[in-house]
Amino acid sequence: MKITIQKQQLNESIQDVSKAISSRTTIPILTGIKIEANSTGVTMTASDTDISIQAFIPAEIDGERIISIERSGSVVVPAKFFVDIVRKLPASDVHMEVGDQFKIVIQSGSTEIQLAGLDPEEYPLLPRLAENQTLSMPSEVLRSMIRQVAFAVSTNEATPVLTGVLWTLDSGKLKFVATDRHRLSSIERPIDCPPELRFHNIVISGKNLNELGKILPEQNTLIDIVVADNQVLFRTGNILFFSRILDGTYPDTSKIIPQSYKTEAVFAAKPLADAIDRAYLLSREEKTNIVRLTTAEDERSVEISSSSSELGRVTEQLPVESLSGEPLKISFNSKYILDVLKVTEDDSIRIGFTGAMSPMILRPADDGGILHLILPYRTTT
Amino acid sequence: MKITIQKQQLNESIQDVSKAISSRTTIPILTGIKIEANSTGVTMTASDTDISIQAFIPAEIDGERIISIERSGSVVVPAKFFVDIVRKLPASDVHMEVGDQFKIVIQSGSTEIQLAGLDPEEYPLLPRLAENQTLSMPSEVLRSMIRQVAFAVSTNEATPVLTGVLWTLDSGKLKFVATDRHRLSSIERPIDCPPELRFHNIVISGKNLNELGKILPEQNTLIDIVVADNQVLFRTGNILFFSRILDGTYPDTSKIIPQSYKTEAVFAAKPLADAIDRAYLLSREEKTNIVRLTTAEDERSVEISSSSSELGRVTEQLPVESLSGEPLKISFNSKYILDVLKVTEDDSIRIGFTGAMSPMILRPADDGGILHLILPYRTTT
Repeated sequence: MKITIQKQQLNESIQDVSKAISSRTTIPILTGIKIEANSTGVTMTASDTDISIQAFIPAEIDGERIISIERSGSVVVPAKFFVDIVRKLPASDVHMEVGDQFKIVIQSGSTEIQLAGLDPEEYPLLPRLAENQTLSMPSEVLRSMIRQVAFAVSTNEATPVLTGVLWTLDSGKLKFVATDRHRLSSIERPIDCPPELRFHNIVISGKNLNELGKILPEQNTLIDIVVADNQVLFRTGNILFFSRILDGTYPDTSKIIPQSYKTEAVFAAKPLADAIDRAYLLSREEKTNIVRLTTAEDERSVEISSSSSELGRVTEQLPVESLSGEPLKISFNSKYILDVLKVTEDDSIRIGFTGAMSPMILRPADDGGILHLILPYRTTT
Repeated sequence: MKITIQKQQLNESIQDVSKAISSRTTIPILTGIKIEANSTGVTMTASDTDISIQAFIPAEIDGERIISIERSGSVVVPAKFFVDIVRKLPASDVHMEVGDQFKIVIQSGSTEIQLAGLDPEEYPLLPRLAENQTLSMPSEVLRSMIRQVAFAVSTNEATPVLTGVLWTLDSGKLKFVATDRHRLSSIERPIDCPPELRFHNIVISGKNLNELGKILPEQNTLIDIVVADNQVLFRTGNILFFSRILDGTYPDTSKIIPQSYKTEAVFAAKPLADAIDRAYLLSREEKTNIVRLTTAEDERSVEISSSSSELGRVTEQLPVESLSGEPLKISFNSKYILDVLKVTEDDSIRIGFTGAMSPMILRPADDGGILHLILPYRTTT
């Protein structure tokens, strides 16, 4: 392999694939990035067996030569050092040549780097997926669906399936669900796909989806999604992103979602977040994060409060946009509500309550496709 | 105590004094901030016994009323919560009232906070310093002197005196020295003070000086510095900053500074930093950070290199602005040089070498008042 490549393109692709590099891998070859050059361009691959990312840099983009390929070939470079050094090379071009025993010489400006490469034949092949279950969706829709639910996955590795997001496709609607048993977030969006295409119990790690969200293109391009037996492939432009599908059966969460409310309130989202944040500051000192909401009799406001046996009490009268139904006192973990309000793009949020001991439901006022459920904190006071 | 105060002024002063709050204090009253109000304004005090900071907010600034004082008095508020909540209060004014048993009620907009305050009589008094050793200097000069040396203090608590910066005043020149035994940084600046004013062996914690640097005013105002037996006071505008003087005798470092060089080179500072940074990236993988510099025979460049037994080698030809004297190969901890180059404001840096096993001296090309010494890494290869 002997190539000269534009540093900026090389750096961007290296940054993308490096998200699959794990510092904790026990497989030596996976500490590297595989680089393959042929007459069409350069392909880079990184993997931690859970995620694999492949980026392709074409030899020419819009008539501009990005790579000069003098000799095809491939090599595995040490990932951590390579990622850091490429960004800091002095010139706009990088020359790479692989010699005997995978010795790599990299030149840029007056910098010369000799690296011990690894045998690319040892690098695991990426899975080949049957493409019979394929759908396409705009990157922006996928990114926002991930954002609305991924924060609600469990971080407890004892029940691995709950560390993932449940994907369901039925009747042209794609639905994501995530829950950690204390809260649940879900989002449903219509997808342009053949109506007979459907799948159930596809669970993808929330961590992996967050990594995917980081490399999804900013522009609203189409993402192809290939769902196979134990892998999902996301394909966009010149990037392939493979994620393993989590084993196990995702619990049925449909029954815990209340169908009617005893009390309903609509809040301006920002003032609600600010009021809960102030109450949270005090409850944090108690290490409980518990905040209480109490409806006022005039149905025009609620009281947001928290208390700490040592420090004192925060109380706040918060006007509501509307309030109806039974009077209510409810205690909850304020972090859960703040997490929801952080991803809410609507100016107003509608909260439905079914009693002090029952789940509360938060929805952006103008978006029926999003639902957040939070279990209250059971308190006797 | 009963006052109404502008949130922004309260917040700024609270942020300043909070730098003296330690999360590890074992003295309960020092987890609080003391607030005192009288007809002239409000004074806030925080301390961890090592640093004490006091900020005064006048009742009126330039004819604008900042504080309405209905009743004088004082109280100690819980620092951590108070610092966080004041920043997040909803209105531009904050009302504070202290009742029986130091109960505090804070109101801002529709937020009401009840806090358990502490008895201000229990709060330790700030030291009263004899003002016979007082000098004044522009805040910008003090800030830059701190920046040039504070990174070189030792972090090893086994020799406390080396965690400080040595201050010496003699013949109208103020000098700072810091060393961790592997490197030394010093800066000397003329100060406008009576020629008979002098002091020796005043050692002030590098950490404290860094905190002081953060609250020194941006504008170039005069800072009064009062040097007493075991405390130094920095006074600027409405802020007092007290730091304890470290016990112990600072070692005499004058003898380790070479007076002549065998090899001298002048480098453009930025390309030198970039080249060493690239070599550092590789040496970091070896956990040694060792980089080697070798002069070229043509006296026009040096070679910067590093190697890792596992990964390979980085080699770079770096042009010099000038090079004279004996040929040289020297190895050093690249982090030490990068630390120096990070604070160097000059475009050029002059390095004097006295041999491969002897200290090297770095000075900004145009500033004789700054000196950085770095001991080489002793290597046999």
